[in-house]
Amino acid sequence: MAQPKKTLSPPGTDLIRRELRELERILREQSRSEVRLLMEVADHILESGGKRFRPAVLLLSAKLCGYSGPRAVAYAAAVEYAHTSTLLHDDVVDEALTRRGRPSANGIWGNQASVLVGDYLLFRAFYLLIENEDPRIMKLVNSVATQMAEGEAFQLTRKRNVKLSEAEYFRIITDKTAKLISISCRIGAILGRATAKREHALGEYGFHLGLAFQLKDDALDYAGDERAWGKKVGQDFSEGKMTLPLIWAFRNSSAADRKKLARLLAKPKRKAGDFKTALAFILRHGGLDYALAKARSHAGRAKAQLQVFPDSPPKQALLDLADFVVARSV
Amino acid sequence: MAQPKKTLSPPGTDLIRRELRELERILREQSRSEVRLLMEVADHILESGGKRFRPAVLLLSAKLCGYSGPRAVAYAAAVEYAHTSTLLHDDVVDEALTRRGRPSANGIWGNQASVLVGDYLLFRAFYLLIENEDPRIMKLVNSVATQMAEGEAFQLTRKRNVKLSEAEYFRIITDKTAKLISISCRIGAILGRATAKREHALGEYGFHLGLAFQLKDDALDYAGDERAWGKKVGQDFSEGKMTLPLIWAFRNSSAADRKKLARLLAKPKRKAGDFKTALAFILRHGGLDYALAKARSHAGRAKAQLQVFPDSPPKQALLDLADFVVARSV
Repeated sequence: MAQPKKTLSPPGTDLIRRELRELERILREQSRSEVRLLMEVADHILESGGKRFRPAVLLLSAKLCGYSGPRAVAYAAAVEYAHTSTLLHDDVVDEALTRRGRPSANGIWGNQASVLVGDYLLFRAFYLLIENEDPRIMKLVNSVATQMAEGEAFQLTRKRNVKLSEAEYFRIITDKTAKLISISCRIGAILGRATAKREHALGEYGFHLGLAFQLKDDALDYAGDERAWGKKVGQDFSEGKMTLPLIWAFRNSSAADRKKLARLLAKPKRKAGDFKTALAFILRHGGLDYALAKARSHAGRAKAQLQVFPDSPPKQALLDLADFVVARSV
Repeated sequence: MAQPKKTLSPPGTDLIRRELRELERILREQSRSEVRLLMEVADHILESGGKRFRPAVLLLSAKLCGYSGPRAVAYAAAVEYAHTSTLLHDDVVDEALTRRGRPSANGIWGNQASVLVGDYLLFRAFYLLIENEDPRIMKLVNSVATQMAEGEAFQLTRKRNVKLSEAEYFRIITDKTAKLISISCRIGAILGRATAKREHALGEYGFHLGLAFQLKDDALDYAGDERAWGKKVGQDFSEGKMTLPLIWAFRNSSAADRKKLARLLAKPKRKAGDFKTALAFILRHGGLDYALAKARSHAGRAKAQLQVFPDSPPKQALLDLADFVVARSV
């Protein structure tokens, strides 16, 4: 498996370079299987441009709380496996043929392989969790994994529903993104035996960071620079997913405009021209500005949580990370 | 959720009637979700004629080893959830539109729901495992779950491969069936604090019982009485799965016959007439007799393992269960 192609650019990466290298080794080693199909698909998805975002926040959180031992990397690998497993299963759910600008696993090997390799990686995540024998961390991860499945199922039932509310949208991105990033931070705090207050603050940091991350991601899906971003814009739109830019624009348009848009969204197959129409509609109503303002606001709330910690390089890295998440074009 | 429609008929059921009732309650309670889609699909699959075979062997094994407490039912529910999760994911993998004679979950709700509900039930299984805090049992279940995914992936790569060997077939049914039944028995032994020798014997009992169970299942897929069995014959054949009756017949036929059969199996869509041709071919070469003799042999080996236990009602129930598995027409 090659190194991931896109790595985090903020200064934080320097502090955990050794751990990120060790992480790649563990990810590669633990996904080895005698069944070639499993290894091929696992390698494909693990090396397809993942930013190792969740491992990075876990490792920096552990460092912030004074822990630099080997268990942090093991838990970082578990969290990355769990995340990768959901990507594979989501691609089946979304019927996505590309992921991060490359053909998705189910685009190449079919739904079957995506399901089985997703399961396989999930069991590798649990293997690392069980081996490291912390019942609290196991419960946290399993509970969040359950909520992720529930969030994804909820999103599925709301697909192509133009009436998805902002509150429902936030429920979806909370379940599918913010919670896993939040517990990644909390695992770091638990490893560092942080006080309950600090663990809570890190959990809230991760929660708001996760929301900012997903809000920005969903905005990039409309306004990303395809060359820098490395993936095609308009994927959410073509899958019929309502995200905040569209929700906002829809809510703030005239009844006639709403009707026109609803018709566009009801089409089973959407074309490039449809996307351009929707994007123009969003821009006219300030949907992107609104979503990006929300992203900045959550990044700010994330940073505010770190006040309970004295200044240190890992704290600065986490602060920078929150800025990076909303400033990034990738 | 209604009671499962088909229950085990052997006398063993009387010994664990209370526990099986409690099991239904736990299965119903633990799969409750705020997301309606999840509950609907979970209910559909949990009540669609499951025999609760794995829970029954776990509960009887625990009783044989002197344990009748509440943890046996919790573990029985965990094992049933894990099994049910694999059924849902397998239906996506097999592209099966029916299961146990009823429309399969993915036939009704689509692949997406099958994947998500499979994940959801898996996390409920882990929830019960984590709550009951036995690291050895967690490791056993997770390790077998990993092997089940590997077995299923291996089977996927061998689909429509007429050259599948008997050894490869046994590898597949070991991974996908025998191992989970084997650890169901071992969990019972662990709960009863059985000696290592007895735990091993129960594990071997379950292993051979599982092989006998799957061999018989695969034979029924060719020779089952559809009305009694409640499902259509020929499903494995139409999905391109090579099972022992066909493997044996293929190995023992003339080169000309083999060629004819290979052509039949290579067809992307198989018709009812094709199934009749294959069945006649199997009968002519004694493929069913051979597979059923193997099933009986493994049932016998299962029973022999129980010699280390003194006579008791649960022991008798497990002995009867081994006979039942090969004698059943359902």
